[in-house]
Amino acid sequence: MEEGKKGGLLIVVSGPAGTGKGTVIRALLKKNSGIKVLPSVTTRNPRKGEKEGIHYYFKTREEFERMIENNEFVEWVDYCENYYGTPAKQLEESLESGIDIIMEKEVEGAIKIKERYPDSVLIFLLPPSFYELKRRIMSRGAEDTPVIDKRLRRASEEINYAGRYDYVVTNKRVEDAADNINCIIKAEKLKAFRNIDILKEISL
Amino acid sequence: MEEGKKGGLLIVVSGPAGTGKGTVIRALLKKNSGIKVLPSVTTRNPRKGEKEGIHYYFKTREEFERMIENNEFVEWVDYCENYYGTPAKQLEESLESGIDIIMEKEVEGAIKIKERYPDSVLIFLLPPSFYELKRRIMSRGAEDTPVIDKRLRRASEEINYAGRYDYVVTNKRVEDAADNINCIIKAEKLKAFRNIDILKEISL
Repeated sequence: MEEGKKGGLLIVVSGPAGTGKGTVIRALLKKNSGIKVLPSVTTRNPRKGEKEGIHYYFKTREEFERMIENNEFVEWVDYCENYYGTPAKQLEESLESGIDIIMEKEVEGAIKIKERYPDSVLIFLLPPSFYELKRRIMSRGAEDTPVIDKRLRRASEEINYAGRYDYVVTNKRVEDAADNINCIIKAEKLKAFRNIDILKEISL
Repeated sequence: MEEGKKGGLLIVVSGPAGTGKGTVIRALLKKNSGIKVLPSVTTRNPRKGEKEGIHYYFKTREEFERMIENNEFVEWVDYCENYYGTPAKQLEESLESGIDIIMEKEVEGAIKIKERYPDSVLIFLLPPSFYELKRRIMSRGAEDTPVIDKRLRRASEEINYAGRYDYVVTNKRVEDAADNINCIIKAEKLKAFRNIDILKEISL
């Protein structure tokens, strides 16, 4: 890989609930150990197995609102009755030290990140079909019908944003989706505008 | 791979003489059988092993000039005392039928192609160093000192164009360079703007 002394790549992955973002990102991290996940700050309850500082920073609504007042977020949203936010300090320190960062974001958050960091790479993960998405949401269990309906309506709205992303990856097979994202990252690092230093060096 | 019914991808590879464009493209074609080479039309003499209609369409200066008059080229240039041109009809027919096309082009030609086909993908192949480039040009043999000096001067000029390309790939090892170009092609096919059809289909 051609890499100069330069900042890390910021990769943002979105996609409807049930598309498999978490699973695909985990598979990607196994293939590419150079990428780190930056946890979001959230007020939602931890799901089984989710750990503080690894998957999310879990906060109360009061704590989150204080962080908003102190301008500690790159972006934050109120999504399905919970707050989600990206902590600015942790993100910028990681990128400056050359670490590639991947984040899971809902669509509004992703688009705000792109506005603030135009060189970030937005990837929209699609389910293979709407039918398959419904099946996956239902098979997660512990969800009642109104929640499923709400998620499907929301999924449909979110997919309308996909055209504003840089890339669209369909999650038919987790391994293929992770390979495709890995390729996107590799290609992005070869973009000419990210390699001005190398060009200056060789052009004697 | 996510592919709708759509046109092929046009990939243009440039780089100073001696960088190894031909070798890298041959390695790429072995990895990815979906890509075809569109031969250029040229007035230069065939090198050993070069075949009509596979590596180039070889023409006399008179024939080439007649083709210019008949507007048969996407672009053509006069480069190191020979004409080189891209035949419009063959290129557009291939792309419309969904075939991915790769072409080797000097910098002026590549930039003209990008102007006419903004969705084309321009890749600049760099030698690992100027020293290595000189060594490679000399090891080709059958070249005298003025030719070597001319090529090196020209190489230096060409590298100044690299910033106008989409991607920059360094040819340290042929296999790695071919893998990187293959990844670029895969990533380009996942670009959101090339997948509007899939988005329309899934967004019920």
